[in-house]
Amino acid sequence: MKTVAIAGVGLIGGSFALALRQAGFTGVIAGVSSPRTIAEALSHGIIDCEMTLAEAAGSADVVFLAQPIGRIVSLIEELAPFLGPSTLVTDAGSTKSLICAAASKFLPAGQFLGGHPMAGKESRGVSSADGGLFRGRTWVLTGAVSHPFVDWVRKIGSHVLVMGPEEHDRVVALTSHLPQLVATALGCTVGAGLERDEQLRAGGPGLIDMTRLALSPYDIWSDILVTNSGAVDTALTALIERLEGIRMRLRDGELRGDFEEGARLRRRLVNPVELG
Amino acid sequence: MKTVAIAGVGLIGGSFALALRQAGFTGVIAGVSSPRTIAEALSHGIIDCEMTLAEAAGSADVVFLAQPIGRIVSLIEELAPFLGPSTLVTDAGSTKSLICAAASKFLPAGQFLGGHPMAGKESRGVSSADGGLFRGRTWVLTGAVSHPFVDWVRKIGSHVLVMGPEEHDRVVALTSHLPQLVATALGCTVGAGLERDEQLRAGGPGLIDMTRLALSPYDIWSDILVTNSGAVDTALTALIERLEGIRMRLRDGELRGDFEEGARLRRRLVNPVELG
Repeated sequence: MKTVAIAGVGLIGGSFALALRQAGFTGVIAGVSSPRTIAEALSHGIIDCEMTLAEAAGSADVVFLAQPIGRIVSLIEELAPFLGPSTLVTDAGSTKSLICAAASKFLPAGQFLGGHPMAGKESRGVSSADGGLFRGRTWVLTGAVSHPFVDWVRKIGSHVLVMGPEEHDRVVALTSHLPQLVATALGCTVGAGLERDEQLRAGGPGLIDMTRLALSPYDIWSDILVTNSGAVDTALTALIERLEGIRMRLRDGELRGDFEEGARLRRRLVNPVELG
Repeated sequence: MKTVAIAGVGLIGGSFALALRQAGFTGVIAGVSSPRTIAEALSHGIIDCEMTLAEAAGSADVVFLAQPIGRIVSLIEELAPFLGPSTLVTDAGSTKSLICAAASKFLPAGQFLGGHPMAGKESRGVSSADGGLFRGRTWVLTGAVSHPFVDWVRKIGSHVLVMGPEEHDRVVALTSHLPQLVATALGCTVGAGLERDEQLRAGGPGLIDMTRLALSPYDIWSDILVTNSGAVDTALTALIERLEGIRMRLRDGELRGDFEEGARLRRRLVNPVELG
């Protein structure tokens, strides 16, 4: 891997560039982005040079698409005519089914590997780029392939997790999209239910934790939710059913089973020993 | 206020005793508790002496009932026959309607003031008692009365919030009981939806925050939920309706309004300026 082209030098793309350098990558890192972002990334030493998408597709060993989902889908179609025979295209999109379907349609088999680095920050843009962003975090790849890019994902400190695109989308519907919607719904319900501002003083640290995600901007979430609406619908339906069950068992005080089941997931979540 | 009797010298009762001392209270603090707890509280200097419930009711200026809800209801009936003419009975129960109804039935008007100090810890028992537990926290009182006890609640650093028992129970159903049940339901749903342990690695800090409360032991929650099942049912129904609405709007990507509404509550919650 001698040349990596990063399309979209924002938080994720810029952090990947910095992480590669910190891990000892000595090849060329090119940026495909708006003139303003390119200028900023060059001035911070995050990229070495600018490329057009066609140049990147034709000459880089790896093209890393680090943009919103809709834009990644467009770029796959746009770069396809220029793709060199040994270039690997990969991405950082938060849902995988739609992106992998576009890749199957427009790119030769074996030249696309879907990815989802599960890392982020409150702030966005290349100015927030951080070479340690992926350290210790999971990086989902949609196939078990042997390629220098995968070695570099490991070298920057990420844990590779291989899941097919449909499995990935089903899992993140539960582990990421559902918690987001629950925080939003809880915020709405509490806000609508309170009758006077002073009552907010009865909100403790539990409510504060449970509504932190409600601050996430919709602009980040809209294409995630639209491109995963089937799996999110299934997850929401299961949650609503559980809440209905809890509501029915409430009066009889028969919630011990629910409490134990909920606690069990939480313990598995923070205890990697049980991940086997 | 010269003598305070604390029935149930556990985390809350013991912390109140320590907080009184640290705030300069020089009267007598008596404990009404099991022999083992009394011995431990005496050895740590948390209480000055032991009293029976009848002695406390007959001679203390304030009797503070710091036990589980069901036990507080029983104690109100048990102490009633011994109540001195100027003794104030107050409590620390997490729901207020049932307790205040029992007080109305068994105690003379004006001699009971319901309370709910909104503070806690993961650990329980007198060995966890902490004189700073109530500092900066809300202490709900079910009436606006002028009594030295209320002055001491302020002196130990609590913010008094006056709410009637029904209003209190409606509000905590939203701000405390609903977040607990949502965390539990989310833990159950995610746990039931995952197909293999490795998928848990796709769970990020959001899911970890959103399921922290799921670790709460059911033994603490059972009597809270049973004694507030009406208000909790209403809160759950409103949340389920909101989640159904979100599910319907998902495919059309029309969730901007929900995201903005959820974020608004969260900002009001952590910005006391907006509390007016």
